[in-house]
Amino acid sequence: MRLDAIVAQLGGELRGDGSVEIVQVASLISAGPGHISFFSNPKLKAQLKDTRASAVVLAARSADDTDLPRIVHPNPYAYYARVVALLNPAKHPAVGVDASAAVSSPLPDSVTVGACAVVGQRVSCGENVVIYPGCVIGDDVSIGDDSVIYPNAVVYQGCVIGKRAVIQAGAVIGSDGFGFAKEGECWIKIPQIGRVIIGDDVEIGANTSVDRGALDDTVIGNGVKLDNQIQIAHNVHIGDHSAMAGCVGVAGSTRFGKRCTVGGAGMVSGHLEIADDVHISAGTLVGKSLKQAGVYTSVFPLDTHEDWLHNAAQIRRLSKLAERVSELEKALKEKNITP
Amino acid sequence: MRLDAIVAQLGGELRGDGSVEIVQVASLISAGPGHISFFSNPKLKAQLKDTRASAVVLAARSADDTDLPRIVHPNPYAYYARVVALLNPAKHPAVGVDASAAVSSPLPDSVTVGACAVVGQRVSCGENVVIYPGCVIGDDVSIGDDSVIYPNAVVYQGCVIGKRAVIQAGAVIGSDGFGFAKEGECWIKIPQIGRVIIGDDVEIGANTSVDRGALDDTVIGNGVKLDNQIQIAHNVHIGDHSAMAGCVGVAGSTRFGKRCTVGGAGMVSGHLEIADDVHISAGTLVGKSLKQAGVYTSVFPLDTHEDWLHNAAQIRRLSKLAERVSELEKALKEKNITP
Amino acid sequence: MRLDAIVAQLGGELRGDGSVEIVQVASLISAGPGHISFFSNPKLKAQLKDTRASAVVLAARSADDTDLPRIVHPNPYAYYARVVALLNPAKHPAVGVDASAAVSSPLPDSVTVGACAVVGQRVSCGENVVIYPGCVIGDDVSIGDDSVIYPNAVVYQGCVIGKRAVIQAGAVIGSDGFGFAKEGECWIKIPQIGRVIIGDDVEIGANTSVDRGALDDTVIGNGVKLDNQIQIAHNVHIGDHSAMAGCVGVAGSTRFGKRCTVGGAGMVSGHLEIADDVHISAGTLVGKSLKQAGVYTSVFPLDTHEDWLHNAAQIRRLSKLAERVSELEKALKEKNITP
Repeated sequence: MRLDAIVAQLGGELRGDGSVEIVQVASLISAGPGHISFFSNPKLKAQLKDTRASAVVLAARSADDTDLPRIVHPNPYAYYARVVALLNPAKHPAVGVDASAAVSSPLPDSVTVGACAVVGQRVSCGENVVIYPGCVIGDDVSIGDDSVIYPNAVVYQGCVIGKRAVIQAGAVIGSDGFGFAKEGECWIKIPQIGRVIIGDDVEIGANTSVDRGALDDTVIGNGVKLDNQIQIAHNVHIGDHSAMAGCVGVAGSTRFGKRCTVGGAGMVSGHLEIADDVHISAGTLVGKSLKQAGVYTSVFPLDTHEDWLHNAAQIRRLSKLAERVSELEKALKEKNITP
Repeated sequence: MRLDAIVAQLGGELRGDGSVEIVQVASLISAGPGHISFFSNPKLKAQLKDTRASAVVLAARSADDTDLPRIVHPNPYAYYARVVALLNPAKHPAVGVDASAAVSSPLPDSVTVGACAVVGQRVSCGENVVIYPGCVIGDDVSIGDDSVIYPNAVVYQGCVIGKRAVIQAGAVIGSDGFGFAKEGECWIKIPQIGRVIIGDDVEIGANTSVDRGALDDTVIGNGVKLDNQIQIAHNVHIGDHSAMAGCVGVAGSTRFGKRCTVGGAGMVSGHLEIADDVHISAGTLVGKSLKQAGVYTSVFPLDTHEDWLHNAAQIRRLSKLAERVSELEKALKEKNITP
Repeated sequence: MRLDAIVAQLGGELRGDGSVEIVQVASLISAGPGHISFFSNPKLKAQLKDTRASAVVLAARSADDTDLPRIVHPNPYAYYARVVALLNPAKHPAVGVDASAAVSSPLPDSVTVGACAVVGQRVSCGENVVIYPGCVIGDDVSIGDDSVIYPNAVVYQGCVIGKRAVIQAGAVIGSDGFGFAKEGECWIKIPQIGRVIIGDDVEIGANTSVDRGALDDTVIGNGVKLDNQIQIAHNVHIGDHSAMAGCVGVAGSTRFGKRCTVGGAGMVSGHLEIADDVHISAGTLVGKSLKQAGVYTSVFPLDTHEDWLHNAAQIRRLSKLAERVSELEKALKEKNITP
């Protein structure tokens, strides 16, 4: 694809030779002839100088840092994302319902259902939906236009999925929330009768699970991106455009605001309120509501195991240590010794 | 359903108008006409006063706190759980084996096997078992009466599941334990020939995995409840009525007593003994046996990232700090300075 | 099987009566007649004295510590692993393609494909591969000889799996990496066009996920063993013979050297370099590159919740405490008070 054809489709300002042929994207370092790369991190200026790419996407402020054919755009990384999509259109199976699929609802002609997939009764399915082999879509599920559900994912009955969803393999949407009442030493199951409501443009990672609500619904806002191995408990609300990295857990009824992020293995307790624009660091446990935007962390610092042993041993005596320092301060004050 | 009909089925003491029609449960706050709610937390007394519910379940000590039609019961929350079940009977697919299922064992007529599910040879299946679409039940598995296995769950060969089990979608029961012997720089696999034995009234969450034993069995006791995304390693024993929240991990050969709980993302090392009635906080790593009942915690306290940076930097100097305080104490003692 | 027949097959030095019949392996404590056990931990010498096993595998230095028929070998545990395999050959379904499987590629006659499994187009499959029921193997996948893929595992299109792989149930290989570019408040998906390349002799645990690379590939080296519930992000490289326990997460583009280990729930941030022979403790968060071999830890020490509360409260004042100690040192120094 010619560089000027890319600009014609995706916008941006072309500088230099628009006739150069682009076949693929690559990083500045690994690019070669026929590759287009992007530059946005000023620290990588040396890589920009040395790159063997045929073209580069960059911001106006860096437009003169290279002589290569280039596209100037205010957000080079987002532009680059669109170039990747343009050069690498999704390869889904041919449209139609595989003979081995078990489909119990009428579906639009534009829908793909793979081998051994199962679609229940009264399923409402938008145009161009792709259901990969082995998926199980329960009764009364609704799936918006252009959504893609990868192999062996499961959507329980009654759940709602918006448009352009991407649900990776093995994800489970709508499993029962973990709701039990204690009676003596036994746990009595509380049937979970809510649903999962997923907005538009949501991605759900591989082997991630999102529980249905107990009475009301679990709600995943528009544009939310969930990585793999995540657990979202019943009645959680996640605000629009929030993103969570792998292995995160969110306990029941917690509500996230908009544009939040959670780093890998972050864990958030139940019944909390998390404000808009809160960023939780990787490995952090959140046990209280966070009413202010900002970055929050709770991680024991990494050390060699030997040094860790020495310092960790003091943690258990930390309260005592603080008392001893107070005693010393008191003793010196009585003797009028101050610096 | 009339309120007096609920009492007739579930017990408790009826006060006020038993003829009121109940169609659903709801929380005190969100309830409206036709809803029944429950009250057990004294802090929510204002909600009880203001609720628009048609009826309430509460304890004897609170029986006079409302004029609404009410059911008096010593455990309102457990009673409420039963009302939810009564008003919302499980909706499973019609009984029978789907034509697309691959079943290699004789099954009782009361069993349901969904589309594209696979049931191996010599499987022993109790009455009323529901096997949802896409499940794979290995050879020689045993499943007790009234168990429900949701879509795409897997039970490896030879495992035993008790009565009234609920296994959520994507759960894996009986995968190989992580057993390898080191030889030079290589890991030699040790075939895992034990089984998983699951008691009665157990729930296994979505995408949770329970490994089979190496030689002996992995054992999940009666009434155990495991949430989603949990890893139970080989030869673990979990005592009756224990419950574990999402993202928990238990390493090999650890034995839990009865009525234990583990908060979300709690991690328990291998070869430990955990006593009855131990409660492990969310995000806590347990590296030693816990012989006493009680609550245990190991979490770095949450802070803004900036404050965390300051305090975390001191952790690496904590051992030194303790020495410095000892030096100061010694110096003052030599000068006979004490408070 | 006679003891001398085992030695004939697996090597080692036989001492005592080689005609004893061995039917199964067992630990020193639980062994009875017909069992063979192994001894390598000097602390268990009492168990060796008391064992009711019919034979024992042990090292030369312990060869005289028992009168039982025995096999002397430099690595008793690895030898034991091989005895387990010898006495317990894998029981896989009969060779051939099940009538309900959907296979779109020619496969060797020695391959097994279970019920309702799906194999895409242009799949290259080695000899003796076993694909269990419900698996979905995407187009253009390559699988080496003697690999076993357990039920409902998914391999996305284009991924490469080496020889003798063991992939447990529900594992997902080749899901999209978590790659998005921020544009305003939205996340723009970056299509993930790399692959997953898995070496020989790799094990992937149940419900573990390995993301495909963004542009280049995610690479799992030879002999790597991954436990259950693990998340491996895009473009991660894991060096040969590394092993990771359950619930581990590795973020994008991080590169592990050879022979590394990560304990359960260890989490490693993205874009890091981890040297050969690094061992990361359970529950540890690694946020920086580790250039030196060794053991690394970052875990808050476990305590009763009450004691934890006292000590954790001081963590937030730790920076202040260190300042107070410095003030005291300064005051004493000015008065010439030193021990």
